[in-house]
Amino acid sequence: MSRSRAIVKVDTVPESSVFPYNHLAFLSQNEISLLIDRTDRMLYPLIRSCSLAVLSSGMATDHDTCLSAEYPNFDMDFERHPRGLKVVLKNAPAQAFVDGVLIETIHDHLFSVLRDLLHSRDLGRHLDQLTGPDSADLVFQILRNAKVLQSDRELSRIVCWGGHSVSKPEYDYAQAVGQELGLRRFDICTGCGSGAMKGSMRGAFYAHKRQKYSAGHFIGLSEPGIIAAEAPNDMVSDLVIMPNIEKRLEAFIRIAHGIVIFPGGPGTVEEILYLLAIFATPDNKEDPLPVVLTGPESSRSIVDAYVTFLETALGQGITSRIDVIIGDASYVAETMQAGRDEVKKYRLETNDAYCFNWCLVIPDLLSTSFAPTHESMSELNLSLSQSSQKLASELRRLFSGIVAGNVKPETRQLVNESGPFKVHATPEIGGAIESLLKRLISENRMKIDGVYTPCYRIIPNC
Amino acid sequence: MSRSRAIVKVDTVPESSVFPYNHLAFLSQNEISLLIDRTDRMLYPLIRSCSLAVLSSGMATDHDTCLSAEYPNFDMDFERHPRGLKVVLKNAPAQAFVDGVLIETIHDHLFSVLRDLLHSRDLGRHLDQLTGPDSADLVFQILRNAKVLQSDRELSRIVCWGGHSVSKPEYDYAQAVGQELGLRRFDICTGCGSGAMKGSMRGAFYAHKRQKYSAGHFIGLSEPGIIAAEAPNDMVSDLVIMPNIEKRLEAFIRIAHGIVIFPGGPGTVEEILYLLAIFATPDNKEDPLPVVLTGPESSRSIVDAYVTFLETALGQGITSRIDVIIGDASYVAETMQAGRDEVKKYRLETNDAYCFNWCLVIPDLLSTSFAPTHESMSELNLSLSQSSQKLASELRRLFSGIVAGNVKPETRQLVNESGPFKVHATPEIGGAIESLLKRLISENRMKIDGVYTPCYRIIPNC
Amino acid sequence: MSRSRAIVKVDTVPESSVFPYNHLAFLSQNEISLLIDRTDRMLYPLIRSCSLAVLSSGMATDHDTCLSAEYPNFDMDFERHPRGLKVVLKNAPAQAFVDGVLIETIHDHLFSVLRDLLHSRDLGRHLDQLTGPDSADLVFQILRNAKVLQSDRELSRIVCWGGHSVSKPEYDYAQAVGQELGLRRFDICTGCGSGAMKGSMRGAFYAHKRQKYSAGHFIGLSEPGIIAAEAPNDMVSDLVIMPNIEKRLEAFIRIAHGIVIFPGGPGTVEEILYLLAIFATPDNKEDPLPVVLTGPESSRSIVDAYVTFLETALGQGITSRIDVIIGDASYVAETMQAGRDEVKKYRLETNDAYCFNWCLVIPDLLSTSFAPTHESMSELNLSLSQSSQKLASELRRLFSGIVAGNVKPETRQLVNESGPFKVHATPEIGGAIESLLKRLISENRMKIDGVYTPCYRIIPNC
Amino acid sequence: MSRSRAIVKVDTVPESSVFPYNHLAFLSQNEISLLIDRTDRMLYPLIRSCSLAVLSSGMATDHDTCLSAEYPNFDMDFERHPRGLKVVLKNAPAQAFVDGVLIETIHDHLFSVLRDLLHSRDLGRHLDQLTGPDSADLVFQILRNAKVLQSDRELSRIVCWGGHSVSKPEYDYAQAVGQELGLRRFDICTGCGSGAMKGSMRGAFYAHKRQKYSAGHFIGLSEPGIIAAEAPNDMVSDLVIMPNIEKRLEAFIRIAHGIVIFPGGPGTVEEILYLLAIFATPDNKEDPLPVVLTGPESSRSIVDAYVTFLETALGQGITSRIDVIIGDASYVAETMQAGRDEVKKYRLETNDAYCFNWCLVIPDLLSTSFAPTHESMSELNLSLSQSSQKLASELRRLFSGIVAGNVKPETRQLVNESGPFKVHATPEIGGAIESLLKRLISENRMKIDGVYTPCYRIIPNC
Repeated sequence: MSRSRAIVKVDTVPESSVFPYNHLAFLSQNEISLLIDRTDRMLYPLIRSCSLAVLSSGMATDHDTCLSAEYPNFDMDFERHPRGLKVVLKNAPAQAFVDGVLIETIHDHLFSVLRDLLHSRDLGRHLDQLTGPDSADLVFQILRNAKVLQSDRELSRIVCWGGHSVSKPEYDYAQAVGQELGLRRFDICTGCGSGAMKGSMRGAFYAHKRQKYSAGHFIGLSEPGIIAAEAPNDMVSDLVIMPNIEKRLEAFIRIAHGIVIFPGGPGTVEEILYLLAIFATPDNKEDPLPVVLTGPESSRSIVDAYVTFLETALGQGITSRIDVIIGDASYVAETMQAGRDEVKKYRLETNDAYCFNWCLVIPDLLSTSFAPTHESMSELNLSLSQSSQKLASELRRLFSGIVAGNVKPETRQLVNESGPFKVHATPEIGGAIESLLKRLISENRMKIDGVYTPCYRIIPNC
Repeated sequence: MSRSRAIVKVDTVPESSVFPYNHLAFLSQNEISLLIDRTDRMLYPLIRSCSLAVLSSGMATDHDTCLSAEYPNFDMDFERHPRGLKVVLKNAPAQAFVDGVLIETIHDHLFSVLRDLLHSRDLGRHLDQLTGPDSADLVFQILRNAKVLQSDRELSRIVCWGGHSVSKPEYDYAQAVGQELGLRRFDICTGCGSGAMKGSMRGAFYAHKRQKYSAGHFIGLSEPGIIAAEAPNDMVSDLVIMPNIEKRLEAFIRIAHGIVIFPGGPGTVEEILYLLAIFATPDNKEDPLPVVLTGPESSRSIVDAYVTFLETALGQGITSRIDVIIGDASYVAETMQAGRDEVKKYRLETNDAYCFNWCLVIPDLLSTSFAPTHESMSELNLSLSQSSQKLASELRRLFSGIVAGNVKPETRQLVNESGPFKVHATPEIGGAIESLLKRLISENRMKIDGVYTPCYRIIPNC
Repeated sequence: MSRSRAIVKVDTVPESSVFPYNHLAFLSQNEISLLIDRTDRMLYPLIRSCSLAVLSSGMATDHDTCLSAEYPNFDMDFERHPRGLKVVLKNAPAQAFVDGVLIETIHDHLFSVLRDLLHSRDLGRHLDQLTGPDSADLVFQILRNAKVLQSDRELSRIVCWGGHSVSKPEYDYAQAVGQELGLRRFDICTGCGSGAMKGSMRGAFYAHKRQKYSAGHFIGLSEPGIIAAEAPNDMVSDLVIMPNIEKRLEAFIRIAHGIVIFPGGPGTVEEILYLLAIFATPDNKEDPLPVVLTGPESSRSIVDAYVTFLETALGQGITSRIDVIIGDASYVAETMQAGRDEVKKYRLETNDAYCFNWCLVIPDLLSTSFAPTHESMSELNLSLSQSSQKLASELRRLFSGIVAGNVKPETRQLVNESGPFKVHATPEIGGAIESLLKRLISENRMKIDGVYTPCYRIIPNC
Repeated sequence: MSRSRAIVKVDTVPESSVFPYNHLAFLSQNEISLLIDRTDRMLYPLIRSCSLAVLSSGMATDHDTCLSAEYPNFDMDFERHPRGLKVVLKNAPAQAFVDGVLIETIHDHLFSVLRDLLHSRDLGRHLDQLTGPDSADLVFQILRNAKVLQSDRELSRIVCWGGHSVSKPEYDYAQAVGQELGLRRFDICTGCGSGAMKGSMRGAFYAHKRQKYSAGHFIGLSEPGIIAAEAPNDMVSDLVIMPNIEKRLEAFIRIAHGIVIFPGGPGTVEEILYLLAIFATPDNKEDPLPVVLTGPESSRSIVDAYVTFLETALGQGITSRIDVIIGDASYVAETMQAGRDEVKKYRLETNDAYCFNWCLVIPDLLSTSFAPTHESMSELNLSLSQSSQKLASELRRLFSGIVAGNVKPETRQLVNESGPFKVHATPEIGGAIESLLKRLISENRMKIDGVYTPCYRIIPNC
């Protein structure tokens, strides 16, 4: 629930000082100097834009690109202080404050941004090219540092994927599923945003209250390029900024004890493809991670459309690891419960950690960064002359590029300047893609409002 | 959010044993015998019907009268056990359970019912006629025993009144007000039910989460006759069953540090009249309790209708102690905040307890029980030939009778058998009453669904 | 460790205000009036003397009678206050304060005194003559009200009895036993005082710290006549003032999950006799309460002396329920652990409460109050012409009278005025008594310092 | 209080598995491999010997060198496990276990050893030569990683120095000072061992209990070479293993909000000299750290001896920053309280952290490691031809060498092989040293028991 403009009356708070409570209260002199001096030219702009997104958390808008435009005078200063660091916010959105004091969760998220951006920086500059165990190690270190891993907890983390632009029945259904998960004391991890992500978190949160369970985790995994478009919803208790989209996807997969997929747009399709590429990797055959694709009765046709697209492009058996459940929230929760028990058994057998799936093998093509440009998009290999694992990876990159072209400011600018990405595909695959994308457009799943102009053009290669 | 029938699949759970955690884990042999032997013939039926209401908590129904009919085989047994008492539930509503275990808050409420009904019984049989300090003492003892009074807390208890049958904008507005109160860490106390009561609690609850404030109280005050019609909503953390409607009203007033009134039906009018009778008592002139009557823009006219009715019947100045605020949730919260500070100052000056307003004088006509019958309703003195305090008290009884005629099974039966109550009033007052009641009927504020047949007839006396 | 006079510098604090945190923060107007008006003439002097004892808690003195003499100007006032009650202490011992603020546990104990004395008063005036289930019910109500019963706890309460005037090896041994109990997370309950009671508590407390166990209970059971002589030692976390010595003994027995007896003086002998009278009651034959009589190697002879006395007076088999263990602290703890498991099993079989032994039958002669006077002491029936249960009960009264004659001011005055009590006994029993008492005198177990003048004379009846 | 051999019955536990709770439950695959493979040849022996010391925590022995000899078969294995790491202990001292389970604080300390040794290793190999801000940064990082720094705490950390071999009056006095500090809710930080270090911790711990204050910290700072001789006493809640003696001294100084020095042997003299070298540094002139040198009346002469030695060797004014207080425990606590307030004020003025004194300048001669050998000891410059800061630093090294010659196995071996260290000093200084050392020997402050053979010879240079 956002606080209306009428409610907050003024737009911005001229100046406000905040102090970290935790870990960041203990920066060494060197670390503080890094912030104060703004010596790292790449770092400050990232901090600023992520902080602004966090300060807009709970606002009823996804006019992503406008955020910077709307608060042009927003600025941050850093100072030494006996209680650690002092952060001065200038011209921050007024809705983040109550009686001049920052709302507590926003306060936390603000320091999560600092924590993760500083830490990623410490971990080195070549993380875009990390693969295999090194990539897993990096993801692990960021999550450990963010304290979202807990050893003394039951396996309880359900990752929920789904659109941020969804219909009322889909939102209500996500909330109902969240409720049934929450009544069973599951934690929810999402991509942070609104729609299905918020619905599932809110349902679980309210169910935790009914169970008098206050130790629940509501983890939001974001990344610097996406956070402006998907500011943390008001249920997120633990915000983690992963360094890029591929590490964010890896984080989802490695910490999940179960995955629930609700209908969504190209971002959701990207996530499904990422998952299928992993399932198609022979080393992962035994891993028992439970996955459910679900929606209310009214969404049956879009769920069918996903399955049709996937089976057309990647082969009949490709969705065999995914349970499709329509309109039965408690059955989704029960499926997760049963699957979680399998996961626990498997981890025990393999001596793998409960809190982090080290065993899963992630193909290099999924781990390395994909930067969508006209060149890289045109070079995608969308043909059947490769394993389904490789094709799924290439398709993942395609949809990742489409998401970026829809919402990431710098990618949108590329498209504005040089026209839509040209994507080459064999006719069968191209046809399946086109058909799915049209459906997403017609159901308004590409963006929340306004007329959608595609950022891509599918060109059949002969 | 109720759990749909589809979700819970079966209707009832044949048998389930539950154990108290707290206080009731320590019943003496005498106290346990009282429960086991069912020696008190009045007690067991009360326990059964209140327990059934609690087990229906969170269900999307107010078909009050049907609850017993819907679960005719519901039954309870009590046994001794090393961990204290053991309660066996038979054929209880399935929606109260998850994987065979009672939802925690429902578990708590179940033992709150036992606690309060046993305690009220201990406190004596003549409580219907208690007035003045003795009545205050009784109310205090029940609330203290229920542990809803806390000495080390800021003054933070806002009582929210309003209908359980409200429009979507009214529900959303109650939630927005709850949010602004919750962001300021206020506790919410309501009459337990749905509609405005649930909206304000839910808004505050989410806001507490945003403030990482987990110590909030969500107090529901009910009474045996009303609880079946207004089962505790799913936000109530502390349920208290007061012995009758008058003690419940007194409890609201004595623990409030501020009162917010949303639009509602005859029950809400009863509450306003109770409050005005107290404000019209000269001894209470100095007491600074803040009261706001509020609603969204779309409810402006019903708010006006209340004011018109009150000023017509009771005189121009009668609403001077009530602030009317339309469509400004944060201003409501700020008004409560400012008013609360006045309350604190006043309690300090008068050495009155922060947690309980001992000083307030409640007229005997408000304290003593009013049992609506054809006789008692026809004997109400609805004329201007008395002080506004007395007239407000008589009008309070009228609306109390109408509520009972609408929802309480035994009163409805009276009306079914002998026709509507005949109520005599002078023409001005009768006209004002008729006019307000018509409006409540036309706005569906008398009951949640179905056609409303009035349980009263206003007869002008010449 | 007491704080030396040098440390606290001044003797008394002229005036200091304290406020209750808990339950007593919520007195009704009636209850507060009772305190303010001092209407109950018996109540205030009791409150005053018990409070003074509590304020002396931790002081290195057992010059009991001097306490009132030492602080002749100590006084208390009660006032209404928004945070509940306000208690004004006048000329209280300075050692109870740090920088003008009462030490927290002393603060708590002060309000425990008020709580228990007010509550005992509420429970009625004839409690001296209560027996059987009524007596159990009273004891239960006082302990429940003091919140020392907890349903969600393992059976973990070990009652430790033993002298407050003990040798260094005995103190160290009590501490070693306490340590082994504490390492196993047992709670300790004692009669509050110094010596073996303090040693066992302190050992357990340090051991809890080593186990990072902070939920341990250190219960001290006292009564108004004894508290001045045995001010709560500095380890007591929960102080309960039982109304008289017999209810205190009953409380020990009913809440114990095991009993450890260290060497002591006539008070310890009284406790053993009380226990043996209960074990000699046929109804209690099955009850598995574990009891260990233990001391360091250097105390072997006094332990033998107890056993000799008991078997001479009450018959060979009388001590069969008591395990004697010399110089093996961990074996004592292991014995308690094994015995506790038996207790749990038995309670489960009999559906008796874990936290309170309702089943135990206590003979009337133990339950009713014994007031030692020259007359009552001379009328004790100390002959073999009765059951061992009755004889043990009579002997319990004898030693109770000797304790009173040693330490209770009013009984000492009787003896000062009219000479030692004359006690009639058959030669065998009289001889056994004399022999034991001489040993207690020679080992300085009658009082902490100074020459001991017996308050009794044993006269053989022919 | 140690658990006697009789108590634990067997000497060692053949095999036992333990799991980390915290941070170390989250080792990455790389980090676990490091432990499992024992690839670092220096690391495992350090881990083993520190772990053995920790497992002996609470034992009544300082036969340091014997520890390894006494448990020759003690060994450790490391394995992967779903709950993180699994550590297998083989033939560990039985007294560390209760019913086969490790005592909780020993469990914690065991993982503190791993944490700190792994972390120091990560921080680099040249830490022996770090000085200035780099040294401070290293110390900060180790303490932060050990979570002994807390930003939301009052300034409350009192460092207590003093001998582990002390008389009963000195132990009791340390306990009395600890009590007065604890009653004021101060935390205690010591060098871990017995004697004055244990006394002050125990007094404070018990006082915290009296104040119902459970958040107190009891920090023990050790280092790999000293821990075998000074196993953590049973009060230490937070154990930190600093990489060497100089970093340990720096840690004491930078986290102290006040320092209390009790009488001790050469280690205590080393600490005083370290402190005086810092106070003699002009940059530190304004720093208000309060320091008290104190003991019971019976220790007045040794305190005088310290002062005489210091003023003779370093000049009259040298002890002006140290308050000497004899036999007044509460005055010591009040002095710390007043001094702490000054520290807070100063930190606020200088924007220095409350939890870590960054501003203090530590001379390079104090920061760099001193390895006592016959060569290095003979090269000490003990003459007046230098600043008092430099001379104090040289004297610090001398006493550090004597401590090592007394207790560190490898240094003792050097002395055994090649005779006592030859130390050259000018006659005045040499005389002052000799005179102090003789006194320490005659008062048994060099080692706990047995005849002391000096590991040094003072040679006057002409």
